[in-house]
Amino acid sequence: MKAIVYIRLKSEVLDPQGQAIESALKNLGENDIKNVRQGKLIEMDIQADNKKDAEEKIEKITKSLLANTVIEEYSIEIG
Amino acid sequence: MKAIVYIRLKSEVLDPQGQAIESALKNLGENDIKNVRQGKLIEMDIQADNKKDAEEKIEKITKSLLANTVIEEYSIEIG
Repeated sequence: MKAIVYIRLKSEVLDPQGQAIESALKNLGENDIKNVRQGKLIEMDIQADNKKDAEEKIEKITKSLLANTVIEEYSIEIG
Repeated sequence: MKAIVYIRLKSEVLDPQGQAIESALKNLGENDIKNVRQGKLIEMDIQADNKKDAEEKIEKITKSLLANTVIEEYSIEIG
């Protein structure tokens, strides 16, 4: 099964990478783009009996390893 | 308009971050997860007259600034 975990900084957390992109865009003359935020995505193949098992397993590893839940939020897509 | 650009390493490009995650998972006893690949996502608000204009603009900045198209591929989601 394919799975993707999307990890984003919580909205109240400052995002210096996003700000750097926004400022680079401004320097290129692009003023119509605002509120740039950078996150990450992690794709993987998972072996599980069913979608529910896969989701539980991925939620576990996301909380323990992939995301820092103090400052990040995540969503999981399986299919 | 909200837009998200998903950027992934091309499949033929080595992904050391993904390998590091996979190896950390193995050390935690998780052997059912394979082929881990890490990418990034960039979210933004864009001001444009319509979806087509927004898409063209975002494709332009993705090629010129956000993605390294030699080693990365991207997809754009607007909505």
